[in-house]
Amino acid sequence: MVGFLFPGIMAARKENMSEQVLIFDTTLRDGEQCPGASMNTREKLEVARQLARLKVDIIEAGFPIASDGDFEAVRAIASEITGPRIAGLARCVDKDIDRAAEAVKPAGDRARIHVFLATSAIHREHKLKMAQAEILKRSVEGVQRALGYCKDVEFSPEDASRTEPEFLAEVTHAAIEAGATTINIPDTVGYAVPHQFGALIKYLFDHVKNIQQAVISVHCHNDLGLAVANSLVAVQNGARQVECTVNGIGERAGNASLEELVMTLKTRQDAFAGFTTGIDTRQIFPASRLVSHLTGMIVQRNKAIVGDNAFAHEAGIHQHGMMQHRETYEIMRAEEVGRASELTWGKHMGHHAVGQKLEEMGYKLSDEEVRRVTDQIKTLADKKKSVFDEDVRAIVEGQFTEVPKVWKLDYLSVMTGTIPTASVRLIRADKNEPISDAGTGDGPIDAMLKTIDRITGIKGNLQDYSVSSVSRGKDAIGEVSVRVQFNPDGDVGGRIVTGKGVSTDIIEASALAYLNALNRYLDEQRRRAETEKPTL
Amino acid sequence: MVGFLFPGIMAARKENMSEQVLIFDTTLRDGEQCPGASMNTREKLEVARQLARLKVDIIEAGFPIASDGDFEAVRAIASEITGPRIAGLARCVDKDIDRAAEAVKPAGDRARIHVFLATSAIHREHKLKMAQAEILKRSVEGVQRALGYCKDVEFSPEDASRTEPEFLAEVTHAAIEAGATTINIPDTVGYAVPHQFGALIKYLFDHVKNIQQAVISVHCHNDLGLAVANSLVAVQNGARQVECTVNGIGERAGNASLEELVMTLKTRQDAFAGFTTGIDTRQIFPASRLVSHLTGMIVQRNKAIVGDNAFAHEAGIHQHGMMQHRETYEIMRAEEVGRASELTWGKHMGHHAVGQKLEEMGYKLSDEEVRRVTDQIKTLADKKKSVFDEDVRAIVEGQFTEVPKVWKLDYLSVMTGTIPTASVRLIRADKNEPISDAGTGDGPIDAMLKTIDRITGIKGNLQDYSVSSVSRGKDAIGEVSVRVQFNPDGDVGGRIVTGKGVSTDIIEASALAYLNALNRYLDEQRRRAETEKPTL
Repeated sequence: MVGFLFPGIMAARKENMSEQVLIFDTTLRDGEQCPGASMNTREKLEVARQLARLKVDIIEAGFPIASDGDFEAVRAIASEITGPRIAGLARCVDKDIDRAAEAVKPAGDRARIHVFLATSAIHREHKLKMAQAEILKRSVEGVQRALGYCKDVEFSPEDASRTEPEFLAEVTHAAIEAGATTINIPDTVGYAVPHQFGALIKYLFDHVKNIQQAVISVHCHNDLGLAVANSLVAVQNGARQVECTVNGIGERAGNASLEELVMTLKTRQDAFAGFTTGIDTRQIFPASRLVSHLTGMIVQRNKAIVGDNAFAHEAGIHQHGMMQHRETYEIMRAEEVGRASELTWGKHMGHHAVGQKLEEMGYKLSDEEVRRVTDQIKTLADKKKSVFDEDVRAIVEGQFTEVPKVWKLDYLSVMTGTIPTASVRLIRADKNEPISDAGTGDGPIDAMLKTIDRITGIKGNLQDYSVSSVSRGKDAIGEVSVRVQFNPDGDVGGRIVTGKGVSTDIIEASALAYLNALNRYLDEQRRRAETEKPTL
Repeated sequence: MVGFLFPGIMAARKENMSEQVLIFDTTLRDGEQCPGASMNTREKLEVARQLARLKVDIIEAGFPIASDGDFEAVRAIASEITGPRIAGLARCVDKDIDRAAEAVKPAGDRARIHVFLATSAIHREHKLKMAQAEILKRSVEGVQRALGYCKDVEFSPEDASRTEPEFLAEVTHAAIEAGATTINIPDTVGYAVPHQFGALIKYLFDHVKNIQQAVISVHCHNDLGLAVANSLVAVQNGARQVECTVNGIGERAGNASLEELVMTLKTRQDAFAGFTTGIDTRQIFPASRLVSHLTGMIVQRNKAIVGDNAFAHEAGIHQHGMMQHRETYEIMRAEEVGRASELTWGKHMGHHAVGQKLEEMGYKLSDEEVRRVTDQIKTLADKKKSVFDEDVRAIVEGQFTEVPKVWKLDYLSVMTGTIPTASVRLIRADKNEPISDAGTGDGPIDAMLKTIDRITGIKGNLQDYSVSSVSRGKDAIGEVSVRVQFNPDGDVGGRIVTGKGVSTDIIEASALAYLNALNRYLDEQRRRAETEKPTL
């Protein structure tokens, strides 16, 4: 196995020292791109702050050419976040690269431009309609143009795992020759299997003469459930950067899961010859919660490391073993990944104490915001016996999903029984005058949503609806997520918008979620000049 | 690589023939054992029927000694299901083996007894307090006792992946010598990584002289996200049975996912030297839906193969590629795994047509039940424009969660607003007389549940609550799942019961789910003489 150094990040390697595997997080780019997971700039910033606390090495913050919103988010992250490098994605096209360069510029020395171009026969022939020579030329030109803006340039031959190895070696050589500092080998369609993918990485090390001049990276998708295993075998064959996402979200079946990769390397140091990462593992669980909340991508109960059951030892025999000796069934401790015991929040806590505790939990809020959260904690503490961290998270994270409130809920009452009926009063911000109406439906939610549509005059089709309790007990806070297609007839191929709402009253939470989606839709309508988005 | 034959199942191997990997499904044993996923006998039978349609080779139906309910379920499955072998689990203890034998007996030639005993140092010392010689002796005795009942005996050295390889080889040799026909190597704590686990299987083939006389199996847990990769590398090194579950459910982070294993072998036949399985892959998605519904274990959107997004190609560049040529981004077709386009159900369908369609969907219902479902479809078709397969599944599956209805909902009305208020009327089956009461709460659900508790006199603590729409549109059917701990003060270490309810009215669905949980709790209370449950 060969060791690689990335001069900007790693110290010179000493004999017998463990080698660092760089963690390139693409939650904000590949993760955010999956259906229904889109976030606004403020939400993305919040995730980026948590990624910095997690100590990832590189944050891929977005694809700046995709839309003005993407550009703004990347630029805001590059301006504010210290610590990790900040990467922006670009096709091998001048306007993409120029735009990416502008977006990551505020990161200074820590700016990275990530250019990509598909290399497999199927993409060359059916998508790009370019011959091999043309692909080579464009790749080199792309890398060179990016180098005109910053020293740290990553190149990805898209669909690498299905590219002829000889041609892949040729492209890799050319991109390094042109000055790329990282070459990323993506398994774009999630087709790779470990023994072949390991062999492919080894092939590159055996056949690309200048390969020692760059860091080799991998980017694996999970369509066959093998993304983590493929990434690990690549590390064993020389890769020193892995691209991954929190909770494994991303296109289709998602990307390699950050938490699984990192915890495998940590838990099985014996088996991975001293490879380490710089991750602060105690920030894993808070990161998982935050991303799940902000994207609306629920983590299944049996998800490794971060699922509700991951550390639950149910079976009687296990419990017996556990009581006798912890390691009988436990290979990791919950505390290692930040799944600490819950704290209680009292109604007598002042906003200073709340602010301090929030900071410990990793939230950076303004004074005004802390006061608002403190008030909400008090209101909640009056209603329910115990206020848990999770309740507070739901309150705090509720702040970040805010968009200009064109429509605001003023009063809501529903009655079920033979004819479910809703009475709703909304306030339209620009007119500042309440509008009331009532309506019926198949159930209270149906009646309430139809009445909202009646008031706003905008028809919404509910695509998906889910509720979960964020803490325990009947008086728990309910978190409602909706996915709605507004104006389905007017907006061809209509965009789906997500919304979230939080309340102890499930009907109110649903109304808030629906209005949140509507306000987002109205906000997007103004801003959007959406172009296409890529994936590796 | 060596080929193995299992005479009872496989035909004699011919040169160049592809080799079959046996699929041992443990959804009903390891899967059902995870927190909150318990199913009743009727639900287990329904899953077993679907597993038979899926054409798994072996169904592990339960752990008969664990409780009377477990015993009954295994026996019912062994009596009814034709096709797959039916296995029952037992510790190496006489009473366990005798009970398992009795439970699987109705399967005749297809009966299997699966005995296990931990072999790792940590389990020997801290759990079992037995020396190696004692473990060897007990293993052999267990296998021999099981062979007294049936010819097909599987032996598992629990925690094999953390057992000294020399001792593991010794135990394997002794168990085969005693007559075990399958030796299963479990990675009980999800500690294994592919290169080491593959090497362990190879070690056994190199060091156990009589290994050709048995099928070697593996049982991998997913704590590090590597269960599927570990199973595949074991196959490459000689294993010919893999233990797995639908949706990868199971203890903690779950087991190897059946759908990922099967689809990797199918999609990448080129890379896995012609290994095949007997699975009818078009039954994968229906199986996933059924198990998710009956266990209440929600499948995350980005789950490989069966998640909502698994076949969704969102990114603009991908869509462009897709339009040009399907394989640009698609390595499997949705139809291959049974994700067919939705059918519409009309209100003019007679119960014969409904019965036929239900049979195509894989449901085996009595005439009376088909009539009941037909009526419900009609009622639903009056309420909402389109009735989809998923609506019908929700209705049909609603039938299987039935337990004796001690408490039944007669009338429900709630009012939200300043003081959320619920009026509830329940009927107690043995008295057949309605009891009404009203109550208030923080929200409509809270008010309603508190009122139910007031009427029944049984206090319930809501542990978890989730709702999802099973079809699209505001008038979609809502499916509520609850996890409740009843009588938390009376019942030390109180059991958690799950309940499900379906309605277009979310409040009504919640009431039905809560009462379903309560009725289950009352039913279990009568029947239960619960002993401990194991895990591999």
